[in-house]
Amino acid sequence: MKTTAIFYHAGCPVCVTAEQGLAHALDPQRYTLEVVHLGEDKARVAEAERAGVRSVPALVLDGAAFHINFGAELAVLK
Amino acid sequence: MKTTAIFYHAGCPVCVTAEQGLAHALDPQRYTLEVVHLGEDKARVAEAERAGVRSVPALVLDGAAFHINFGAELAVLK
Repeated sequence: MKTTAIFYHAGCPVCVTAEQGLAHALDPQRYTLEVVHLGEDKARVAEAERAGVRSVPALVLDGAAFHINFGAELAVLK
Repeated sequence: MKTTAIFYHAGCPVCVTAEQGLAHALDPQRYTLEVVHLGEDKARVAEAERAGVRSVPALVLDGAAFHINFGAELAVLK
C-alpha cells in the first residue's frame, strides 16, 4: 500500500531545489507525493503545524516531519 | 544509470530517524544509498564539507546537500 508523502513549501528557491532534488527522489512504488504551496494554500498551514512542521521546505513522511535546509519559518506564512 | 546518494550522520537520534524515515525512502531504482557515520569515519568529514554539508544528518544527492532537521554541527565532528 502506498503512503502519501507531503512536501510543504512556499515557492522559495530553497524550496524548489528541495522539491526537485529530494522530494522527487522518493520511491514512487512506495510513496505518492503531494506538493502543497503554503503561500497559496494558507488553510493548510495549521495542518502542517500539527504534523510538526516549523519551517519550509519540509517533507512529512509516515508521520515524521523532516525539515530540509531552510527557506522560511512557518510563522511568516500564517 | 544509478546515482549514489550519500547520507552523512553521527549516530544521533535525529540522524537515526532521518536515515530510517527519509534516506531509505529514496527510489532504489535510481539511487544507491551510501551511509557514512562521520563520528567513526572522520577522514570523510572534509569530503562532506566540500559537498556543502554543514550539519548532520544530511543527504548529498546529485551534488546538492540537503540538511535534514538538525542533529549536530559538522564542526564538532572534526
